Formats: sequence, structure tokens, C-alpha cells
Amino acid sequence: MIITLKSNINNEELDKVFKELNNKKIEYKHIQIEANSNEKINLIIITSDAYNLDEHVIKSMPAVGQVLRITTPYKLASRQYKKEDTIVTVGDVKIGGKEIVIMGGPCSVESEKQVEEIAKGVKEAGGKVLRGGLYKPRTSPYAFQGLESVGIEYLLKAKEKYNIPIISEIMGIDKLDEFVKNVDIIQVGARNMQNFELLKALGKVNKPILLKRGLANTIEEWLMSAEYILAGGNKNVILCERGIRTFEKATRSTLDLSVIPLVKKLTHLPIVVDPSHATGNWELVESVSLAAIAAGCDGLLIEVHNHPENAFSDGEQSLKIERFSALIEKGKKIAEVIGRKI
Amino acid sequence: MIITLKSNINNEELDKVFKELNNKKIEYKHIQIEANSNEKINLIIITSDAYNLDEHVIKSMPAVGQVLRITTPYKLASRQYKKEDTIVTVGDVKIGGKEIVIMGGPCSVESEKQVEEIAKGVKEAGGKVLRGGLYKPRTSPYAFQGLESVGIEYLLKAKEKYNIPIISEIMGIDKLDEFVKNVDIIQVGARNMQNFELLKALGKVNKPILLKRGLANTIEEWLMSAEYILAGGNKNVILCERGIRTFEKATRSTLDLSVIPLVKKLTHLPIVVDPSHATGNWELVESVSLAAIAAGCDGLLIEVHNHPENAFSDGEQSLKIERFSALIEKGKKIAEVIGRKI
Amino acid sequence: MIITLKSNINNEELDKVFKELNNKKIEYKHIQIEANSNEKINLIIITSDAYNLDEHVIKSMPAVGQVLRITTPYKLASRQYKKEDTIVTVGDVKIGGKEIVIMGGPCSVESEKQVEEIAKGVKEAGGKVLRGGLYKPRTSPYAFQGLESVGIEYLLKAKEKYNIPIISEIMGIDKLDEFVKNVDIIQVGARNMQNFELLKALGKVNKPILLKRGLANTIEEWLMSAEYILAGGNKNVILCERGIRTFEKATRSTLDLSVIPLVKKLTHLPIVVDPSHATGNWELVESVSLAAIAAGCDGLLIEVHNHPENAFSDGEQSLKIERFSALIEKGKKIAEVIGRKI
Amino acid sequence: MIITLKSNINNEELDKVFKELNNKKIEYKHIQIEANSNEKINLIIITSDAYNLDEHVIKSMPAVGQVLRITTPYKLASRQYKKEDTIVTVGDVKIGGKEIVIMGGPCSVESEKQVEEIAKGVKEAGGKVLRGGLYKPRTSPYAFQGLESVGIEYLLKAKEKYNIPIISEIMGIDKLDEFVKNVDIIQVGARNMQNFELLKALGKVNKPILLKRGLANTIEEWLMSAEYILAGGNKNVILCERGIRTFEKATRSTLDLSVIPLVKKLTHLPIVVDPSHATGNWELVESVSLAAIAAGCDGLLIEVHNHPENAFSDGEQSLKIERFSALIEKGKKIAEVIGRKI
Repeated sequence: MIITLKSNINNEELDKVFKELNNKKIEYKHIQIEANSNEKINLIIITSDAYNLDEHVIKSMPAVGQVLRITTPYKLASRQYKKEDTIVTVGDVKIGGKEIVIMGGPCSVESEKQVEEIAKGVKEAGGKVLRGGLYKPRTSPYAFQGLESVGIEYLLKAKEKYNIPIISEIMGIDKLDEFVKNVDIIQVGARNMQNFELLKALGKVNKPILLKRGLANTIEEWLMSAEYILAGGNKNVILCERGIRTFEKATRSTLDLSVIPLVKKLTHLPIVVDPSHATGNWELVESVSLAAIAAGCDGLLIEVHNHPENAFSDGEQSLKIERFSALIEKGKKIAEVIGRKI
Repeated sequence: MIITLKSNINNEELDKVFKELNNKKIEYKHIQIEANSNEKINLIIITSDAYNLDEHVIKSMPAVGQVLRITTPYKLASRQYKKEDTIVTVGDVKIGGKEIVIMGGPCSVESEKQVEEIAKGVKEAGGKVLRGGLYKPRTSPYAFQGLESVGIEYLLKAKEKYNIPIISEIMGIDKLDEFVKNVDIIQVGARNMQNFELLKALGKVNKPILLKRGLANTIEEWLMSAEYILAGGNKNVILCERGIRTFEKATRSTLDLSVIPLVKKLTHLPIVVDPSHATGNWELVESVSLAAIAAGCDGLLIEVHNHPENAFSDGEQSLKIERFSALIEKGKKIAEVIGRKI
Repeated sequence: MIITLKSNINNEELDKVFKELNNKKIEYKHIQIEANSNEKINLIIITSDAYNLDEHVIKSMPAVGQVLRITTPYKLASRQYKKEDTIVTVGDVKIGGKEIVIMGGPCSVESEKQVEEIAKGVKEAGGKVLRGGLYKPRTSPYAFQGLESVGIEYLLKAKEKYNIPIISEIMGIDKLDEFVKNVDIIQVGARNMQNFELLKALGKVNKPILLKRGLANTIEEWLMSAEYILAGGNKNVILCERGIRTFEKATRSTLDLSVIPLVKKLTHLPIVVDPSHATGNWELVESVSLAAIAAGCDGLLIEVHNHPENAFSDGEQSLKIERFSALIEKGKKIAEVIGRKI
Repeated sequence: MIITLKSNINNEELDKVFKELNNKKIEYKHIQIEANSNEKINLIIITSDAYNLDEHVIKSMPAVGQVLRITTPYKLASRQYKKEDTIVTVGDVKIGGKEIVIMGGPCSVESEKQVEEIAKGVKEAGGKVLRGGLYKPRTSPYAFQGLESVGIEYLLKAKEKYNIPIISEIMGIDKLDEFVKNVDIIQVGARNMQNFELLKALGKVNKPILLKRGLANTIEEWLMSAEYILAGGNKNVILCERGIRTFEKATRSTLDLSVIPLVKKLTHLPIVVDPSHATGNWELVESVSLAAIAAGCDGLLIEVHNHPENAFSDGEQSLKIERFSALIEKGKKIAEVIGRKI
């Protein structure tokens, strides 16, 4: 980190900066350089790790002009810290390795029959993980809120019958035991990406966490949220890009696939893509899924429904089982071109 | 609500729409109009209340083209439902009436002395509510996370000594009892605006709730989150605009003061403005605060610190007590011009 | 188009709406439906073409509540109007057909030698069109502004030597003759997407136009800008997605590849992708390019430089010739999977 | 400017950076500091003016890590360069001084009678400049495009009759002579904020220029566009904030009034606000205008129409003359509170 100092500061103001750095056991050099304007360039260069230094605290000091981070504000999540790719293991499934893992299932768990039929379809098509929402984050209090605990049995039956691990979204700490006990991957939704109490709690469990990017969150903030989980001791974090909110309303969100190669440089964690929530339109899901595979993602999380037109939620973005199956067939060939497999 | 139907639908597809509407006990008329293209215009017009109709469910049906809401998707929060302004009472303070209520205090509670000094300053300057963060939502797991329960005693002492109600941010359901017991206004932060489990729980308590707008949330979604609380039975909701996230990074967020007159048309709930988080820069706070008053807000929530340069968090956006006091003096005169008072 | 009327309007206000529609020779039906609130639902349904009806004019009338477009506000650009894909022919090259056309070249034309070397590399690698900027839209008045007319000779020599058509960006109407005479595809940059005077002028020339999407423009506005050119009589419009501006700054722009399948539904015009400006980072260009191909684009417009580290502009996002060549080799295989070719 | 160098660079790569700086006659110091990781911190500190250094060129060099600007990339527009406020004089009107200047008039010039009536109303209400669009930037080629040259006579007659200077928007260089001859302030619309050819041409005329902020442009880019005009020799630039494009669609744009105090710190140029285009809704214009005055703007540019419901364009955001007059009366009192006048 480089800290520029203002030109007209006094010693007392400068000492406050040194004191703050000393308190945090940060090492630094103070440098003054003649500039050919009359003013000196006055810098503090941090020479030790600075990820635990709060740049907003530094910036609020009267002596300080600007702060430039040279190193990332996250440590455990960074590629510098861990050079090899993290592979998250869920039963027989490995996420982050050579295989691109396709996860499919309904937005909401609706009935035993529904889950059973979709699980069968997902498995037969080549899907490796079954998704199914129990607690649903709904904008309207009058909309279907999910089957909650009732639905978990349906997922567990399907899991056993088709030997397929399950992923579901957690909405709050109070359901943590239920999720740890029953679910194979715990999903943190976009709206909870900065629910820090939840992240702290998830850092202490021994379950893979799929962490969706928030609608208005930068890649850096996303990796900071992953850092919360990693810093708690849970190393099994999977990132999930699902689009961000922009001025464009023709799709539900704006999906940026350039995050895939970018995230691969910044972190060792695997990244999957949710094309269903990103587009909000099943007609776009196949093209976008193939694109995500070509861009190098480690998996896809796709909404699949046996009867989308009757779905309790998000039917407009759900694929029928046949289409899901066709998508995987094409995806296999794309994966091969880039040296991966499905 | 108006539902347009696609041109080439069959009877079975059409019947599914009718069935869904009948199931939800929605009344409607089906209308067909000759257009001078060869295709007929085929519409369903909802003639009863439609706020409990999930437009995404409707849109996912194969027969449906577009859906136009004529009425709002929220009911209890709407100006149509309740014509008179809601006034939220907190001890002697009334929010939403003629008086514009100024709330001030530190971003984070840091020590007994700090809270005591700031409370004194806020009260003497004319502030009516004391803010102070106990649990802090911090992007970095390595940043100061708040004094948590330890800090509550400091706030309560200041409350008693200066006879000033207190507001603090809740981060999760698990702390609900603590907040209901100790705090006069429970703040829901921007990151929790769509933490629906929390909103449901807050609907069942008998405390004023200050609901901040999320960084990427529309005004409609904000009012839907208020609806969650209102629908639970708690009528004491205060909205708080604190800026949204945009491409512009010269300020922390982009504050849109046009939401004030707009929200006043849409809802009966009071609206306050947080100029500190919106701008992230104390040098802009006074101008923006005066602007918010001129635009018709019902209150301001301002970060005030006795020593901003030593603050544990957000010092760069905190006002010194003298500046806070000067702001209120100017604010009084602006309030008078528009027929309000401070 | 469906126009909802307010509940408390008088006859005079209603007549103004009818008069406006009659003036524009728009046909309509006026419908009143009993609702089970006391208010009637009062609608005007447009039964003739409405693309030339200005919805803002309609909305400003005191009688009018909301306006819902059922049909697109563009006509000639719409898939409804022309079902078959438009194929734009540039010499031997066809854009919009089975072949995905790769265009490459430097951001700025810098010297005869530079253009010659890059043209050779682009052609040998399989590129079909040579790009090269003559007039550069630069944020700073102190930055390199392009070789302007001087550079055109270099492009023309390379064109002749390697038998490769050239594309370059026009900045204003005053250079139209120069561009029509010398250039094979005239590029309209993102900043000029709504330079309507320029669009009108381009509608009257007989040259292919590559129309980039503006940084803050919706897909609908983009197609409306295409409509300006088409309405002028020039049918050879190629769309180019190059990312939009969002809160995320880790990439130069946010590229949304879901626009590719979406645009294919809305319009018959071909769409190419510019991964270089979208990402601003050459390390991301290959992944994003392969993704664009998988998503179904009709071409790529890629910055290629013989010495990116010495480039006068945008070197950070330019590919070396070897990397450009490697990208095309992988691209060929992806194209094959989805039934296209390069 | 501070340039950080990568850790594993060779001498040849480093020399290229030095060479580029030497070519541009930039002075610098090269500094190496031991860090307690094994890597050295390797910096180049620019000690002379750096506004003419293209940071993208520097960033594209293999040796370079990050670039931190300490000084602004604009010079003539900066408050550092010119400490006193610029006051732009238009006849008897001074923009940027103690007086807040209200400009009003129709979106489009429609007829002699319309302009005459509105000019009378604007002048009597206390407006000091008459606005009126001749060439209209319209999203649709089928919408009213303005009276063009025909309308200029109407504006000139009103100007003479009511002794009020006129402002109108220029769409391209080809109309420059017409505008210089007839118009008192030349407006550059949001869509042309980065039409650099136009900006260069406007730098060479001797007329005040009102430069609107682009829909997706940062404050820095806006000031860089002002720099284009200033660098050409025209010192009479007025900035105009009119809202930016965000995800929120409840208003036409998102108006950020915090830019007013911020811009006042960064530049000496006056800043006015256009509340009509920002909100797109006349019902919000008064509140937002009063807020802009309270925030410290130097003027307002407001759409006023004698018959908004019949306006050829933007009637929904136009004030009737009586409302415009009432707004000014309230505005006068707000201005007084903050030590200004109208």
C-alpha cells in the first residue's frame, strides 16, 4: 500500500498516521521527494502485509491524500497465497478440476413428485448435483415463500434414489443446523453475499459453500466475502456468477462472462455460472451456458422444471428436461475443445 | 393488471391462465379486438385487486406475452391504501410530521467516553435521536466489527443522561431480543433490505424500524420490503435513502434526492436521508443535507464524531460536532422556507 | 400499444388523446370495463401500427395513466418485419451467414510499417477484415488523436497488398466523403451511437455500417439507432456489442453476451462482438472471444498489434499476432460445434 | 503520478518506461524499497506535471503494475490552476457569481406564438435566459426532429421583444456558424458530451458553452470534455448536471446533487442543474430545483411550456408558467438562506 500525504500537514497530523500503523504492527518507509512544482511529494510506503489495514481509516486522517493498494485486500482467497486450484469435493463430484459440473433442478421444491421427476431427468441428462429451493427470497410478501422444512424430505428421497448430492439456499443463521445436516452444498444467495453474520457462521462448518455474487457487488467485494468464510476455517468455497444489476432491463440481470478468466487470475477458488437467474429467460439459457463453458467456468447451475408453465416461481427462466439434456450434449463438445470435460 | 396474450395460442394454453387466476380468486375480463394487421389483440384485464398475483408466474405461461401492472404490487405501503401521512412516534419525537428530525452519532460505538461526548454534542446542537453502530457490516473480515453487546451500555447511559432516544443497526434475527429491549429505532441496513427472514421478524415487533434502501434496489423493491414489515403487523416503518451504486466512483454512492418527492406520492411512510453514507465525504454532507431538507425529507441521519481522524470506521464521512451544529442552524432556515421546522 | 386512462378525467382531456391519435392516423378502440373497486378500467387499444407514435407525447397528456407497447418501436430493424437474416457483403466477405468473420488490427494507425506488419499477421491468421483507427475519440485533449487523413494511405496499401477489406471509425459528418471513398465498413463508435445527424447521413450512403452499442444504451435504443440508418435507405447495418458501463471497474466495460441470442430474436441484423474494448485487458480477450462464438455471434472485432507495449493507444487490450492466431484456431473448433465455421 | 513496477521485470522492459517518460519530457525518480516479503517495492514517481501523460499507454507496458494519479488529468479546468470562480457573462447575465440564474423555455420550438407566450412567461417570472430546442436528438427516427433553422427566427423575435438571451442545443459541427451567429449560449447535449470533434470546434468560438454531463460519464470525463473546450481557447464553459443512467427507472435519470459541492472543489467553472430531463416528471421538478439551489448550484435549466399536454416533445416533464413562477418565488428564499440570490 502506498499512502500519499497532503502538502500542508503538520507534525502532529503526521504522527497520527505513524501511530495508527505502529498500532497495527505495520512496517513502512516514509519518503520525501522534491517535485519541480514547489511542493514536495510526501509518501508512506507499506513494506509489510497490508490486508488487515483498513484503508478507510487511513483515508479519514487529515494528513492523508490518497491510498493505493498494491496487494489485494483479501489474503486466503488470493492466487498469490495459494497457487494451485482449489478442488471442492462433494461425494463423488469434484468442482474446480478438469470436469465441468452441471447442477440442475427446480427454483422451488413444490412436491415429492415434482422433485422426483426432475431429479431423474437431471441425473439421466448428465447432471451431477440436484438444486432445489426450500426457503425462497421473494420480493413480495404475498408470493410463494417455499415449502421450507417440509420440502427437505423430498430432496433427500431424490438424493438417495438417484445418488445425486443436493444444493439449496440458506436464508439465515437460524436454519444452519438443518442445512449442515441435510444439504451437500449450502448456497448463499446474491442478496446474502454481504450477510456477514451468516458468512462468519458458514466459516465454521464443514460443508461446501456456493457463494453467489451480489447484484451490486464488485468482484473484490465478492472475494472479500469468500475471505470471511475462508478466514473462519472453511476452505470449501465455490463462487457463482449470476449477473449484476445494470440499466439494461431486457434481461433480468447483466451477466459478465469476462469475470471467469479474471477470477481465475485473482483466486484459486472454483467458479460456476447461473445462466437462469442471469438472463431470466429460458430461451437464452443454452447460448449463455455454452458461452460460459467456452469462457472456462467450472460448472453451471441451471433451473430445470418438468412443467415450467406451472412452476410456483421462476418458470419463465426454467428449462424443460429435454432442453437441459440437449444443452449438456452440446456443452460436452465445447468442453472438449478447451481441454475440459463434462 | 393487463395481460396480453400471444397470437398463436391454443385453448389449453389459454385455460391454464384462467385456471391460475381462478385459483388465486382473481376476477378478470377476456377481451378480443380486431387489429388491422391480420392478428387479433387478445387481452385479459384483471378487475380485482392484483397485488397478490405473481407476475413472474403469469409471464412464464406459454400463452402470455406481456404483463402491465396498473396498480402497485404493494398494498399497505401505498398512498392509495392510506391517504394520510404516517407519523412514527419515538418517545417525544415524531417522525413524518411537520418537524424534520435530525439524528446524529458515530458510525461505531467505540467507548463510553466517545458516546457520552458525542451524545452531548448531538443533543445540544438540536439533534433528536442518537445513532451508534454496535454490530458493523464490514466488507473485510479483518476490519473492526463493532463493540457488539458491550457497546449497548454506553448508548443506554447516554440515552438516560441526555434524554435522547437511540437508533442502531441490527444484523440478524438472533439479536432481535437485544434490540427490542434496548433500542428505540431498529435500523435495517442497505445490505439487509432484502433479508426477508429479518423483515418478517421485524413485522412482529412493536418498535419503529428504519429501513434503508439497498445499494441496487429499486424504489418499488424498497416499498415491497416495507410491505413485508407492514404485513406482519408493525406499522412503524421509516424509509431511509442512502444512495445507490452506479458507475460514478467520485462519491461513495449516488444519492438521488428526487426519490423524496416521488416516494411521498407513492407511500404514506416517512422518509429520511443519510447524507454521510451516500457521499462518503464529510465535506459534501452539509450541502447535501440542506438539499434533502429543501426537497422535503422528514429527517436526516448524520454521522457525527468527536475525533473523526481517530474513528474506528467511516471517519472520512463523519462531521465534527461544530459542523453538525452549524448544519442544523442553516437547516432550520431552509425548513422554514418550505413550511417545515427543525 | 395499450393506453390506460386515469379515473377522474373529463371529456375535454379525453378528446385531446383521441385528437392526437386521429392526427397521426392511428386506429384505436376505446374500452371501459367495470372493476370491483368503484373505479372503471378505461383503456385505449391501438389497433394499427404504432411505431411512429411517440409514447412520451401520449404520456404527457393529463388523461393518460400508463402506456404499454405491445409492438416494437422500431420497424425495419425488427425480426417481425424481415424474417430472414440480413447478410452484409463486403467484397468476398459475408457477415451474418454461416461463417463467423474475424476482424483484427490496431486501435490506431501509427505508421506504414506498423499497418503492413499487422495486416500481414491478421490475414495469415485467418482474419477477414482489417481494422485501424484514423480519428480517435480520446477522453483527454492531450492524448494522441490519430493520424487522421495521413493514415488512410497506409490502410489502403495494406488492403491492396493483402486483399483484405478495411474498417475504420468515423467521428463526424464532415469526414463522410473520405470514408465512403476509402473504407469498406464505416464504424460508428459507442460515443456516437446516438449522434443522430451522423446516423441520418449514413442512411443515405451505400456502405456497410458497423454500429457499436453505446456505453449507456439499452438494446432497444441500439435498434432504434439502426432504424435511423435503415429508414434512410441503407440496409447494410452490422451491430457490435462492446460492453456497457456499470459499477464494476475490474474490467473496462461489462460485456453481456446474452445480448447475442436476444438480439437474434429481436432483429435480422448481424451482430459482432468487440472483446478488446469490452474487457480492456488482452489477457481476457481469448476466453471472452471463444464465449462470444459459442453464444452465436456473427463476428469478432479484435485489437491486434505487432508491439502492444509501444502502441500509441490501447496497448493494454491488444493481442500480439501469435495470440490472435491461436485464438482463431480454437475459435474454429467452437464454431464447428455449434454448426458455424470460421 | 506514481507508477508501480512488477517484481520480475528485466532491464529492457524497465528502459522502455524510462524512454517513454523521457520522450514526453516527464521528470521522475526511480525508487526501490526493501519489503519484508522477499520482493522489492519498485516505484517510479513523476515529479513534473503529468496531465499530458496517457496512463493507458503507461499501463500497457510489460514492466508496469499499477498507476496512481496524484494530480488531475485535466489542467485548465482544475481549481488548482485557477482558484477564483469563473463567471460567464451573457449580455447582462452573469453565471457563476452570487446570483443563481434561472433559464426556462420549451423543450422544442414549435411555433412563433408558442415561443412568444413562453418567453413572456419566463421573463415575467424572473427567468434570465430563454431555452428552446431547434434540432432535437430523438431516439426514434419517426419522432418530431425539431423545426431546425425555421425555428431560429421565433427565438430571435422573442429575444428582442423581451430582452432575454437564448440558449439552444447544437447537434453537429455543420451548424456551428448558425449557432455562433444567433444563439447566446450554445448547449452541448448529454449524448454529445464526448463528441470530441464538436468540442474542438467549440473551443475556437467566442461564445459561452453549456456542457451537459453524459448519461454514462464520470465527473472526471465531464471535466476532461470541458478541458477540450478550454484548451481550444474558449474559457466560457458552464457545466450542466442532468442526471445519469442507473438501474432505477422510476425517474428518467438519476440526479446526483452531491456533484454540486464536489464539482465546486474540483473546478472553477459554474454548474447549473436541469431538473426536467433528470426527473422526466414535472411533479418532481419543484422539489428537486429547490434542493439544487440549497446544494449550491449556479443556475437551473427548466423546461417550461404554455400547454404541456400539447407539447411536441417532453411535455410530461415541462412546467406550466404559473408553476415555474411559483418555483422561482420559493427558490429566492432558499437562495437567501445560503447567501445567494435569484
